[in-house]
Amino acid sequence: MVASLRLPSLTSLLFPATTRYPAALRRTVCLRNRPASGFASGTAASTDAHRLRSKQAVTPRSQDFNAWYLDVIASAELADHGPVRGTMVIRPYGYAIWEAIQEYLNVKFKETGHSNMYFPQFIPYSFIEKEASHVEGFSPELALVTVGGGSELEEKLVVRPTSETIVNHMFTQWIHSYRDLPLMINQWVNVTRWEMRTKPFIRTLEFLWQEGHTAHATPEEAEKEAKQMIEIYTRFAFEQTAIPVIGGRKSKLETFAGADKTYTIEAMMGDRKALQAGTSHNLGQNFSRAFGTQFQDENGERQHVWQTSWAVSTRFVGGIIMTHGDDTGLMLPPKIAPIQVVIVPIWKKETEKTGVLSAASSVKEVLQAAGVRAKLDDTSERTAGWKFNFWEMKGVPIRIEIGPRDVSSNCVVVSRRDIPGKAGKVFGISMEPSTLVAYVKEKLDEIQSSLLEKAVSFRDSNIVDVNSYEELKVAISSGKWARGPWSASDSDEQRVKEETGATIRCFPFEQTQGIKTCLMTGNRAEEVAIFAKSY
Amino acid sequence: MVASLRLPSLTSLLFPATTRYPAALRRTVCLRNRPASGFASGTAASTDAHRLRSKQAVTPRSQDFNAWYLDVIASAELADHGPVRGTMVIRPYGYAIWEAIQEYLNVKFKETGHSNMYFPQFIPYSFIEKEASHVEGFSPELALVTVGGGSELEEKLVVRPTSETIVNHMFTQWIHSYRDLPLMINQWVNVTRWEMRTKPFIRTLEFLWQEGHTAHATPEEAEKEAKQMIEIYTRFAFEQTAIPVIGGRKSKLETFAGADKTYTIEAMMGDRKALQAGTSHNLGQNFSRAFGTQFQDENGERQHVWQTSWAVSTRFVGGIIMTHGDDTGLMLPPKIAPIQVVIVPIWKKETEKTGVLSAASSVKEVLQAAGVRAKLDDTSERTAGWKFNFWEMKGVPIRIEIGPRDVSSNCVVVSRRDIPGKAGKVFGISMEPSTLVAYVKEKLDEIQSSLLEKAVSFRDSNIVDVNSYEELKVAISSGKWARGPWSASDSDEQRVKEETGATIRCFPFEQTQGIKTCLMTGNRAEEVAIFAKSY
Repeated sequence: MVASLRLPSLTSLLFPATTRYPAALRRTVCLRNRPASGFASGTAASTDAHRLRSKQAVTPRSQDFNAWYLDVIASAELADHGPVRGTMVIRPYGYAIWEAIQEYLNVKFKETGHSNMYFPQFIPYSFIEKEASHVEGFSPELALVTVGGGSELEEKLVVRPTSETIVNHMFTQWIHSYRDLPLMINQWVNVTRWEMRTKPFIRTLEFLWQEGHTAHATPEEAEKEAKQMIEIYTRFAFEQTAIPVIGGRKSKLETFAGADKTYTIEAMMGDRKALQAGTSHNLGQNFSRAFGTQFQDENGERQHVWQTSWAVSTRFVGGIIMTHGDDTGLMLPPKIAPIQVVIVPIWKKETEKTGVLSAASSVKEVLQAAGVRAKLDDTSERTAGWKFNFWEMKGVPIRIEIGPRDVSSNCVVVSRRDIPGKAGKVFGISMEPSTLVAYVKEKLDEIQSSLLEKAVSFRDSNIVDVNSYEELKVAISSGKWARGPWSASDSDEQRVKEETGATIRCFPFEQTQGIKTCLMTGNRAEEVAIFAKSY
Repeated sequence: MVASLRLPSLTSLLFPATTRYPAALRRTVCLRNRPASGFASGTAASTDAHRLRSKQAVTPRSQDFNAWYLDVIASAELADHGPVRGTMVIRPYGYAIWEAIQEYLNVKFKETGHSNMYFPQFIPYSFIEKEASHVEGFSPELALVTVGGGSELEEKLVVRPTSETIVNHMFTQWIHSYRDLPLMINQWVNVTRWEMRTKPFIRTLEFLWQEGHTAHATPEEAEKEAKQMIEIYTRFAFEQTAIPVIGGRKSKLETFAGADKTYTIEAMMGDRKALQAGTSHNLGQNFSRAFGTQFQDENGERQHVWQTSWAVSTRFVGGIIMTHGDDTGLMLPPKIAPIQVVIVPIWKKETEKTGVLSAASSVKEVLQAAGVRAKLDDTSERTAGWKFNFWEMKGVPIRIEIGPRDVSSNCVVVSRRDIPGKAGKVFGISMEPSTLVAYVKEKLDEIQSSLLEKAVSFRDSNIVDVNSYEELKVAISSGKWARGPWSASDSDEQRVKEETGATIRCFPFEQTQGIKTCLMTGNRAEEVAIFAKSY
């Protein structure tokens, strides 16, 4: 999936009339030179650039990653702090990214036989206590409703931190026979976990997610389902968000509270910390035994069902920001960008205005009709220079400029967000609808591939293969991920965490062949594990 | 919108080869007779019919409306009771209806310039107290979180009953200038109201809804927006759900806690009780004054914004059930039916099975490819008779039967859910893809229109024009709605409620011309009001 991607050379982007272009495009391309300063509306540009710096510009990522992240979220209007500590308001531009995530996954869930439904968010406290490791994992993070309609409640209610308990309470009533299986459902909901250290999108008191829950007649089916869902998440991450996650199995210590096995996708952020971006749990019979979820099998015998659960949350939006963003701000993969193309009309004299706006508007309509998410920024209150900076900061993949001379030559200027400055700018792309649409779609695909390729090479250059604890410590302290054979104990794993701050992110699905020796104990090891500091 | 609808005669349905059919259809229709009993798989049918009655059949609607409603919800697997009193689990079939509602409205909201976003559900208690009538209206219904992460909270948190307060808290931070207006957003979320008397879909402790919130620079704009949204709800009700709601303005007593004006759509259920199915509020400056939400206008002066909010909830699903259902169970308007066509293959001998299943499967694919939501029920574990009853109870608009003789004549049998028994059954519809698709789509449209027409005539025959309080009491006590001129006081309105159980549902937008005399006081009245008992 990754190896075949190709980053186009910058030359090809600067000189579109080369043989790299399809013949259909070459015929209609009208090359011409234009001074770089030509796109800013006179002297106002520098004033606005200054205003942008003081009001909207973000701390450079290279200078302070955390400050950059918070600045991007504020400046790009992705989210804001809610009035209650640790809560987050997801603003329209941030929510649109979440909607793109929902749209893709919802189709995949339905294609694989899952139905959406809704479980209440209030769970009797006694439910949480039924599965021993579940209550241990979740009780420190619970929000409790103790008053309803003016009266103290007899039993306090948990605001759902996850729904395995209430799901099993209902499954027990719905499942009777093997004919009722598999039962495969999903819900898109809000969940609450009383986190102490919060960070927008990454860890908030309340967040949005989907949680899938399934019940099966055999352990093999449950295992297959858990694996299928992590595979769907993996494809989503690579193909839609251009995040080259590493899929694998969690260590026992890191397994979900109540699961037999947890599969995970781990993503490397721009500061090289790991982000757990999605998980899929094989719950075995842990919850079905706690809640008595049984079915009569084909031989008439009562058995407990085998279950899975799996989730992806608004955390993924944070992962997209921290994977692709740069000093200038956000950089969005075209497939999940709410705006794929922004069109900026440029005029100096009032006499030019009508022609430019009319051309810009028809370009917008042509692109929208072709299914491209295009926006025309035609306000007169901001200069072109201000708009360029603003939409770059918002991470829009492609910008199209149209000035008076473009109108007369029936051409536009196209700039790529992922290739900064002049290098990403191509003059003289024909406005002829089929040519322009083909060109824009090709560029969107190239940007999508290019972002993934950059992320893959960043990831791979920051994973170090280690064979001893010393090597692991060096790798981690240099900010990288360490990958090495591991068969040591839980307490050894705990020691690594305490001494280095790194945890086992996963035992990756892709394992090298051959005999391995545990980096910690020198004993034989079956697998390599990946260690990293994480969010 | 309503007057042009036409219910096709039963004759035309029984004899499809009449001139009522388009020529294209007539040519390929292959008429033949088949005994009515031919569709059930031998003797097993009657046994199954019995089993259905004992296990799945619903209390006839005509016998006990409330028992019927609860039976339909349980048997059609629309919803189930949650473990906490008054909460509801929305099951996949019920949730799919909600998804159809979301899909339609979401497009309309975006077309009219609204963006989706998300506000936290935890609201500081002090927020609720800021708007005087708002706290009075909502404080008896609040669920309060008092413990988080194991500690008592300093300020108790309200689980959102509606979001005007937190929305205004944020709007105050985002709105500075007239350039920031209008600000138009929406969210699809869960809300909590601690109701004492609950009923699935109609009134539950927690429910799902969308809530739109807008801020404007002038009162005229806010009024226009509030009216636009009730109009969108009205069109949705008529065109998608075939519910002929009556739009109008609430009386002062029934206006939303915190609004200047509340617009409503009122629907008549099968038991002739009214259901408030959606509301749109002109909030004036009530919340902007309470929260200091101000903007600088074009003249540089500070002004409070003018606001609206509007909502439709999962209650609408209850409205659909109670408008169209009959003694047999659910009856779904095709446009919002999760399954529009169910295909039931029929065979007696094993030798017939392959051919029948293959034909049934290709009919399903033909319909699905044409955008029809078709389901093939090919299980061998149930008889055809059982399936007929089951899918009728589930309200699927069209059933297609395919038996061995149908396969050899390349025809199918089509039955309409809304015309019971033989009258709704048409033999010999060609399986030829374009013919079948055209026929099915035409029938779906006819069913949609027919359901609306039936509901309109039921509604209109149950509204009585009254000119005195005596007449009003007679109308209400006979279970009908009363419509009469009203300009009396709030205390008179309260008296009507106490003495008759009926409230003013609305002052309808459609008013008759001419001088009116208040039915209570004999004073001049500007408008007629509609009185009814309600959910």
